[in-house]
Amino acid sequence: MSAASTQVDSPSAQIIDGKAIADRIRKEIATEVKALQEKYGKVPGLAVVLVGTKGDSATYVRMKRKACADLGIQSFSTDLPGDVSEEDLLKVVADYNANEEVHGILVQLPLPKHIDEQRILDAISLEKDVDGFHPANIGALAMRGRTPLFTSCTPKGCLELLKRSGVAISGKRAVVLGRSNIVGMPVAHLLQGEDATVTVVHSRTPDAQAICAEADILVAAIGRAEMVRGDWIKPGAAVIDVGTNPVPDASKKSGYRLVGDVAFSEAKERAGFITPVPGGVGPMTITMLLSNTVDGARRAFEKAAAAQ
Amino acid sequence: MSAASTQVDSPSAQIIDGKAIADRIRKEIATEVKALQEKYGKVPGLAVVLVGTKGDSATYVRMKRKACADLGIQSFSTDLPGDVSEEDLLKVVADYNANEEVHGILVQLPLPKHIDEQRILDAISLEKDVDGFHPANIGALAMRGRTPLFTSCTPKGCLELLKRSGVAISGKRAVVLGRSNIVGMPVAHLLQGEDATVTVVHSRTPDAQAICAEADILVAAIGRAEMVRGDWIKPGAAVIDVGTNPVPDASKKSGYRLVGDVAFSEAKERAGFITPVPGGVGPMTITMLLSNTVDGARRAFEKAAAAQ
Ligand SMILES: NC(=O)C1=CN([C@@H]2O[C@H](COP(=O)(O)OP(=O)(O)OC[C@H]3O[C@@H](n4cnc5c(N)ncnc54)[C@H](OP(=O)(O)O)[C@@H]3O)[C@@H](O)[C@H]2O)C=CC1
Ligand SMILES: NC(=O)C1=CN([C@@H]2O[C@H](COP(=O)(O)OP(=O)(O)OC[C@H]3O[C@@H](n4cnc5c(N)ncnc54)[C@H](OP(=O)(O)O)[C@@H]3O)[C@@H](O)[C@H]2O)C=CC1
Repeated sequence: MSAASTQVDSPSAQIIDGKAIADRIRKEIATEVKALQEKYGKVPGLAVVLVGTKGDSATYVRMKRKACADLGIQSFSTDLPGDVSEEDLLKVVADYNANEEVHGILVQLPLPKHIDEQRILDAISLEKDVDGFHPANIGALAMRGRTPLFTSCTPKGCLELLKRSGVAISGKRAVVLGRSNIVGMPVAHLLQGEDATVTVVHSRTPDAQAICAEADILVAAIGRAEMVRGDWIKPGAAVIDVGTNPVPDASKKSGYRLVGDVAFSEAKERAGFITPVPGGVGPMTITMLLSNTVDGARRAFEKAAAAQ
Repeated sequence: MSAASTQVDSPSAQIIDGKAIADRIRKEIATEVKALQEKYGKVPGLAVVLVGTKGDSATYVRMKRKACADLGIQSFSTDLPGDVSEEDLLKVVADYNANEEVHGILVQLPLPKHIDEQRILDAISLEKDVDGFHPANIGALAMRGRTPLFTSCTPKGCLELLKRSGVAISGKRAVVLGRSNIVGMPVAHLLQGEDATVTVVHSRTPDAQAICAEADILVAAIGRAEMVRGDWIKPGAAVIDVGTNPVPDASKKSGYRLVGDVAFSEAKERAGFITPVPGGVGPMTITMLLSNTVDGARRAFEKAAAAQ
């Protein structure tokens, strides 16, 4: 790695503290929830549906429910067995679609193999699609002159981190590593919407390093532990590391620790801004979910008030 | 321009003959229409709605109707006055949505200013959205693992030209100049779907030339007469020129001629493949509209047959 020998104006990057930024936004959300309650006499409501108990899903769902409670958002919970039928799950979604106290519906992914994920996601009312995964919301995100009702939480969190750190986006070169529906693709659209010139790198890209080296803004969302090395980073670049990869670590009680897609210790010597893992993008994701729920509630309250 | 002095392996590009390729595809479509008629006793139907008589819209609409007739596709026409109300236009769309003989609905754009274009486009049934402009079709295009019912005609035509000319896409660097909803953005998704590494350049990109120079595949859709010069082209690149720009030409009876976004005579000395203007992308657009209409009809016929 040539990182150490490269001359860089600022010797070490500004660390973007996702936890602190998320905390600040949560305070703003709590204030907003109070204001809505005073004005309309109602609170935002989020429904979280968990199917089965596999992997980290239960943990994520618990965190989401707790975050709601902390901010005065009403949370609705449905835990279904791992062998629930697609029809029964659709019924749960339909009930929440019809429930006026619910302004956001989140079905925790991944779903068991016997369930058609697309069918479930498409069944969530556009007005309650707080995850922003409905094709019509994705389409609106991709199109100029349209605004989606909701933008997916992790991508929205990435943009918030850049903006609240004062990173200029318009006119800059941005490279997004990864093109998944839930991170890479929507991040690319958000950056392009802010007038960055965006290149999307994926597993079939032959020379990822050379492309990354041109990026003023680099967003890594590939799920490959520390693949992006220090010498991939353009000096002064802003680096947002979405990756969350467990690597074996005997010194930890759990036997592993989490690292990003970027080799942090090398990259911070060249980058102008960088998010740590954990403590960067992670805390933003749930915060954006809460923010989306409040947006949905505000729209519903205003609509109901206008209809009176 | 340094184009002439640059060493290039092949001295001059292979010209991609859009007219010839479109003719070949139209023959395939005509065969398909006959096969559908034999199997189901019905023909595909396309409804074209024209509002007002401004600009080139009437010409485009006439061309579309004639192309239908040539191929055995039934065409339905509604010409509305330029001051038609939004509600009346919505009523026309609703009637075609309900008409079982119509498998594709095209509302010619642009619409007069007093009409909300988004509202009209969103009203077209997803199953008849042969222009592929509905947000849910765009969303499906953008998402991995989904396939839109219809892909916009000009972008689909660009991809057909590349494929039928034997241009490899997977693993290549592609640059799309322009990010409009009807050309640039969907072309970028189609190229990425074929595993190109795509960069989208737009009016806020500071150094378009340097970015273009890296492109194995360059698609220009900006509406700027001959902005892309010879020395912007990577030697051997495939160049698809969507631009259609009238420039004054006293030698023509009309007083103008059409040129692309690419300076053709310079670019063809460096490119490996290049489309002319006119005669490149142009003939493909209507052809893809006919192809989409037949696809829509086939799905409708199959669905009706399965329901019996
Ligand atoms: N902090 C948070 O809140 C969140 C973190 N994450 C984390 O972000 C990471 C990405 O998640 P997700 O988008 O869901 O992952 P996916 O597995 O869905 O997508 C990974 C993407 O990276 C690309 N890719 C894989 N390997 C390479 C490679 N060697 N070079 C270039 N590109 C590559 C893939 O390309 P191709 O398309 O060609 O297969 C794909 O587009 C994971 O570590 C995940 O844990 C995800 C969501 C939320
Ligand atoms: N052959 C055919 O069948 C068709 C041909 N066309 C032709 O294709 C061209 C593009 O059409 P359309 O997409 O509708 O046009 P739009 O005007 O909708 O979009 C033009 C795009 O080009 C970008 N752009 C404009 N100027 C520059 C510049 N100097 N440098 C870089 N980017 C620039 C704009 O950027 P920004 O977003 O920042 O404004 C915008 O994204 C036109 O010539 C049109 O006639 C279109 C449709 C069909």
